[in-house]
Amino acid sequence: MSLRPLHDRIIVERLEENEVTKGGIYIPETAKEKPQRGKVIAVGKGKIGEDGSVRPLDLKSGDTILFGKYAGTEIKIDNEDRLIMREDDVLAVIE
Amino acid sequence: MSLRPLHDRIIVERLEENEVTKGGIYIPETAKEKPQRGKVIAVGKGKIGEDGSVRPLDLKSGDTILFGKYAGTEIKIDNEDRLIMREDDVLAVIE
Amino acid sequence: MSLRPLHDRIIVERLEENEVTKGGIYIPETAKEKPQRGKVIAVGKGKIGEDGSVRPLDLKSGDTILFGKYAGTEIKIDNEDRLIMREDDVLAVIE
Amino acid sequence: MSLRPLHDRIIVERLEENEVTKGGIYIPETAKEKPQRGKVIAVGKGKIGEDGSVRPLDLKSGDTILFGKYAGTEIKIDNEDRLIMREDDVLAVIE
Amino acid sequence: MSLRPLHDRIIVERLEENEVTKGGIYIPETAKEKPQRGKVIAVGKGKIGEDGSVRPLDLKSGDTILFGKYAGTEIKIDNEDRLIMREDDVLAVIE
Amino acid sequence: MSLRPLHDRIIVERLEENEVTKGGIYIPETAKEKPQRGKVIAVGKGKIGEDGSVRPLDLKSGDTILFGKYAGTEIKIDNEDRLIMREDDVLAVIE
Amino acid sequence: MSLRPLHDRIIVERLEENEVTKGGIYIPETAKEKPQRGKVIAVGKGKIGEDGSVRPLDLKSGDTILFGKYAGTEIKIDNEDRLIMREDDVLAVIE
Repeated sequence: MSLRPLHDRIIVERLEENEVTKGGIYIPETAKEKPQRGKVIAVGKGKIGEDGSVRPLDLKSGDTILFGKYAGTEIKIDNEDRLIMREDDVLAVIE
Repeated sequence: MSLRPLHDRIIVERLEENEVTKGGIYIPETAKEKPQRGKVIAVGKGKIGEDGSVRPLDLKSGDTILFGKYAGTEIKIDNEDRLIMREDDVLAVIE
Repeated sequence: MSLRPLHDRIIVERLEENEVTKGGIYIPETAKEKPQRGKVIAVGKGKIGEDGSVRPLDLKSGDTILFGKYAGTEIKIDNEDRLIMREDDVLAVIE
Repeated sequence: MSLRPLHDRIIVERLEENEVTKGGIYIPETAKEKPQRGKVIAVGKGKIGEDGSVRPLDLKSGDTILFGKYAGTEIKIDNEDRLIMREDDVLAVIE
Repeated sequence: MSLRPLHDRIIVERLEENEVTKGGIYIPETAKEKPQRGKVIAVGKGKIGEDGSVRPLDLKSGDTILFGKYAGTEIKIDNEDRLIMREDDVLAVIE
Repeated sequence: MSLRPLHDRIIVERLEENEVTKGGIYIPETAKEKPQRGKVIAVGKGKIGEDGSVRPLDLKSGDTILFGKYAGTEIKIDNEDRLIMREDDVLAVIE
Repeated sequence: MSLRPLHDRIIVERLEENEVTKGGIYIPETAKEKPQRGKVIAVGKGKIGEDGSVRPLDLKSGDTILFGKYAGTEIKIDNEDRLIMREDDVLAVIE
């Protein structure tokens, strides 16, 4: 069983703050809109323009991303917490 | 008798939380905007663009979907509760 | 004498809740935005796009429709109550 | 002396409620946004689209129309009260 | 010295209420958004569309116009009061 | 050192009220949104349309302009106060 | 490790107020929306238009910029504070 997000939505596995990657990206506690890290699990087919055209997303499964604290909707799949958000809610890709 | 939704609207049969599918998708009680599962019963012809073009919906009858708690309008057909919402209110398809 | 609605507006004769059609569509009393049934009496020429093009409406006279409780403006024609609303306020067609 | 409305505006002579036309259209007192009847005195050249194109109005001088109670701006020409509103504020044409 | 308004703006000389023209246009005191008369002194090159195209204005210098009471910004040129507003704030041309 | 404004922004040197030019443009103290005069110091490359096209600005360095009292953001360059605003915040050019 | 901003976002290293450059740009303390200086560290691929086209950004890595006080989201990379904002939040480039 899997989830296929619609249009420009993506499914994200949140990466806990204490899983510090090599090089270290820290999210400040005091920032008003606290950014957070996650891993992209699935992406939609693309964003649909006013003329009906579909633009494939820049993000792909496996990308590690930064997003705002309140981005997305929380769901639970196979007892794991996931987030569904729009690509535009993603701030940057960690490479 | 049946209902034909207009444009980009769909008709949804809500799936109760205790109807856990194999693999198990649980909807967290504490999430602010609680997502919910449902089955698509009927779909509109498509979303109409600014230039009058019609984009067929990605969803089709029979799809199992996740949507936000407050999405759609509740109606009753043949003594069954149904929801009418727009495709854009749907978060993901469960496959 | 008749009324010709402008653009994407339609004129609707409200169907009372106790006029249950065969198969039975019931509108729940408790829904926040209560949907209601009606019959389309007249439709406008179509919705006008940003480029001036006219898209004919999907609805036609005689259609039985579902719409939200607060949709439209109430008028009285030949001592009969009617509603004028936009096609986009219509949720579904009852077939 | 006359007034030429700009773009998609029209000039309307309000028809009093007691001037009931044959067949009788009554405006309910209790409706929240009370519709009202009027006669079109003059129309603008048309609505200007985003691309600069001009769409001629559907309404023409002489049309009897229904409009919302708060539509338009009141002016006085040659000691007669008139309304200036946009075509989109008009609900329907009485034919 | 003169003022050249930008894009779809115009410069207007307000005509006092007691300068009644032949035929007489009176502005009602009680209207919520009181319309007022003025004379167009200068017009901009035109409104710029989303695609960068320029649509010349319908108004020209010398036109007598009706506009809403709160339309525009008041300035003083050569000790004369003037208004700068957008063409879309103009209700009608008095001919 | 100089500042290059982005897109449709311009940099403005505010002209004090007591620097009355020949012919005299006075800004009324009582106007709700007080207009003010300034000199254009630098302009951006142009406004970017929805389709990515760039429309060069109408304003150029050296233009004397009128703008609303609250237009723009104040900065200090080489100990001189400057304003950064969008071209659309400019009311007119003084010629 | 590095961050790649999405679409029209950029990553900025804030330049402290006491790092006065030659020629001296001072940010006034009293301005309501206080502008601030920074250095561009990374830029996204470009802004995506309604038709799916991508417009490359005007800014490039290394640019010194002015931006509003509340622009962007604060993150920490390799123990350094950074800002992620959209290009449109940038007021000007310091050259």
